[in-house]
Amino acid sequence: SSTQSAGNPADTFKILIVTDTHIGYQERDPIRGDDSFSTWEEVLHIAKSQQVDFILHGGDLFHDNKPSRRTLYRTMEAIRKYCFGDQQVAIQVVSDQAQNFPNFKTVNYQDPNFNISIPIFVIHGNHDDPSGDGQYSALDLLSVCNFVNYFGKSSSIDDITVYPILMTKGMSKLALYGIGNIRDERLFRTFQQKKVKLKRPVENREEWFSMMVLHQNRVAHSPKNYIHEAFFESFLNFILWGHEHECNIQPQMASQANFYISQPGSTVATSLSEFESKPKHVGILEIQAEKFRLTPIPLNTVRPYLIEDIVLASVQISNPTDNEEITQALTEKVEEMIEKARIQQKELGRPDLKPLIRLKVDYTGYSTISVPRFGQQFVGKVANPKDILLFHRRKNTKSGVRPGVENPEAE
Amino acid sequence: SSTQSAGNPADTFKILIVTDTHIGYQERDPIRGDDSFSTWEEVLHIAKSQQVDFILHGGDLFHDNKPSRRTLYRTMEAIRKYCFGDQQVAIQVVSDQAQNFPNFKTVNYQDPNFNISIPIFVIHGNHDDPSGDGQYSALDLLSVCNFVNYFGKSSSIDDITVYPILMTKGMSKLALYGIGNIRDERLFRTFQQKKVKLKRPVENREEWFSMMVLHQNRVAHSPKNYIHEAFFESFLNFILWGHEHECNIQPQMASQANFYISQPGSTVATSLSEFESKPKHVGILEIQAEKFRLTPIPLNTVRPYLIEDIVLASVQISNPTDNEEITQALTEKVEEMIEKARIQQKELGRPDLKPLIRLKVDYTGYSTISVPRFGQQFVGKVANPKDILLFHRRKNTKSGVRPGVENPEAE
Ligand SMILES: [Mn+2]
Ligand SMILES: [Mn+2]
Ligand SMILES: [Mn+2]
Ligand SMILES: [Mn+2]
Repeated sequence: SSTQSAGNPADTFKILIVTDTHIGYQERDPIRGDDSFSTWEEVLHIAKSQQVDFILHGGDLFHDNKPSRRTLYRTMEAIRKYCFGDQQVAIQVVSDQAQNFPNFKTVNYQDPNFNISIPIFVIHGNHDDPSGDGQYSALDLLSVCNFVNYFGKSSSIDDITVYPILMTKGMSKLALYGIGNIRDERLFRTFQQKKVKLKRPVENREEWFSMMVLHQNRVAHSPKNYIHEAFFESFLNFILWGHEHECNIQPQMASQANFYISQPGSTVATSLSEFESKPKHVGILEIQAEKFRLTPIPLNTVRPYLIEDIVLASVQISNPTDNEEITQALTEKVEEMIEKARIQQKELGRPDLKPLIRLKVDYTGYSTISVPRFGQQFVGKVANPKDILLFHRRKNTKSGVRPGVENPEAE
Repeated sequence: SSTQSAGNPADTFKILIVTDTHIGYQERDPIRGDDSFSTWEEVLHIAKSQQVDFILHGGDLFHDNKPSRRTLYRTMEAIRKYCFGDQQVAIQVVSDQAQNFPNFKTVNYQDPNFNISIPIFVIHGNHDDPSGDGQYSALDLLSVCNFVNYFGKSSSIDDITVYPILMTKGMSKLALYGIGNIRDERLFRTFQQKKVKLKRPVENREEWFSMMVLHQNRVAHSPKNYIHEAFFESFLNFILWGHEHECNIQPQMASQANFYISQPGSTVATSLSEFESKPKHVGILEIQAEKFRLTPIPLNTVRPYLIEDIVLASVQISNPTDNEEITQALTEKVEEMIEKARIQQKELGRPDLKPLIRLKVDYTGYSTISVPRFGQQFVGKVANPKDILLFHRRKNTKSGVRPGVENPEAE
């Protein structure tokens, strides 16, 4: 594999990669309620304007296992607006579609009753996983009306055989393997027992670019609740990793194998942790034969989110129990952050959205103040007035805190 | 108006009328769980084999305000199977579609990205009415993916202007007025205050066959919680009345006006009341110019439902407090009813479905027995072993009981 791609568009898959859109997140919040929807629309708009061959989504498309009617409506409304039309789909699916798409036994754009211009391929995450009577996922609702191609739903979790979607575009060949989210401990064990089998094309298997999409912990929160890179067979070329919300979209070579991993991260911050504060992106992945190129695309609709630290001991406060002095110092800092966010947005030509502000306060030796009361002065100025501050005592700086592990359940 | 229709198909609207399908009703019941789904499929199958121009649904398409994922999935799966395809739709909608269909501003079969062969027009009932954030109905989910044309959703309930869907087919003209369910007392008052305005076509208004579809009480449960025929303007030709579950599909002339009313009734029994026991039908409504003809179509998938009466005083029981004797008498009667249902199904060439059996027992002067315990012997023989018997004392035969008012909330 290589990270460079040559030129002929007729032989080059052009794929928009995106994950963890969490549509419907905080939909009732008066300030942030539209965030997940407007970014979903931006993602689809990028796909259309970039004329990609298809969209590949790494799971947690929805935030809630049972999305509200409004969330379902708005999600489908946007797909209908951007992904339908006369433009010809340039890829061919050559594998057994009944095996890849058990619901309707066809890839959506080949159903003659629908004019799909941009097919969406999606696996489920832990937020939109199958559950209840009949083990339907919310993604099945998008699938039954032919709005998406939902794949990677495994009937067993102890013995998994993955039949890739085999696609061709001109001379290029892509084998797309999907594994929808499975509880990490279970999938860890299934991998360890060599019970995850990736089927390979029968003929000319070396000619296929092999891509995996999955939705699992990549960071080890405990010894067996993540998926290790070493589990994957070396014939793979590329892994699209969903679930981890930190944007590490630039492909990284696996440490123990010859494939690359891209972790686009979420498109909306679902927690005020460090790793959600990195700029959000989707990617344009181009694949020609065995070569690929990934171009990150920054998302303009994402609300600015600044997270900073302050140590009260290093601020000029005369009385360590004087709430007014403490409030004053923190207020100044937050105002600086708001202004920084405003300038940032302006420089990037982005809308003047109220920012998410998180100030982590090391209060060792000082009093704390009421977090909600502190936030009242910022109502109308920040998007999260109720939880701007996070107080903590001085950390053991030797062990530190790994970024990305503060709020694993929220991913 | 007339109940006869002349011949030229090119000038004749052919409409499948159906209401109160209550899809998802008792979906978790091990015996009856599939009933609402299989009848929904039968209805669509009839529409397809009869080659109707469209389906008109009078509300309560879904049983639950928030249908389960499985119910939504199966409902859409069937629509995708029967209502999509290349067959040309022969009607023209000539009214302002943005006004009729605010969601996407087009009738579904004219969206060039979908191949609709049988359009469905549907209003909401009290079961699938708009609610929650944004006032979405479950029908909006069928609408956003272009599977149905949801109309008759009024933004106000105190002042209602109904803009008809104006359709032509050859020489015939149809003005279709829809009012989705509104709480009866409120709509009663709005009618009384002359605040329900039915807009009429500007030109040649007399040439339009005017049809209303609504979903309200027709039977007066109390003085103001129903809609009286006299509320409707005399220019109407036909009313499709949803919500009342009793099948009175044969058009009845209104007592005080010159229009006809058809009440198809539900397609699945949602209560074991008298009025649900009449054979279930949908109708084929043919309209040519000012004439119409309605052909009822019996539904073969509907589970047989027998309701009968027994008066213990007129049965040979030697000891009025002898549970065994009473049980014996009732058992014999129920077995007769089961056999009657079996023969009936056989004669009609219908599947041998376990029947719904309701035996109303006038026990005046006698003991009652445990209803669930009595039913245990009929497990595997009837569909409702737990509530076969309904005990009551002798009625005041002068006032009697009006059929159809036993369970108004269930409609
Ligand atoms: Mn996740
Ligand atoms: Mn996530
Ligand atoms: Mn009703
Ligand atoms: Mn009903």
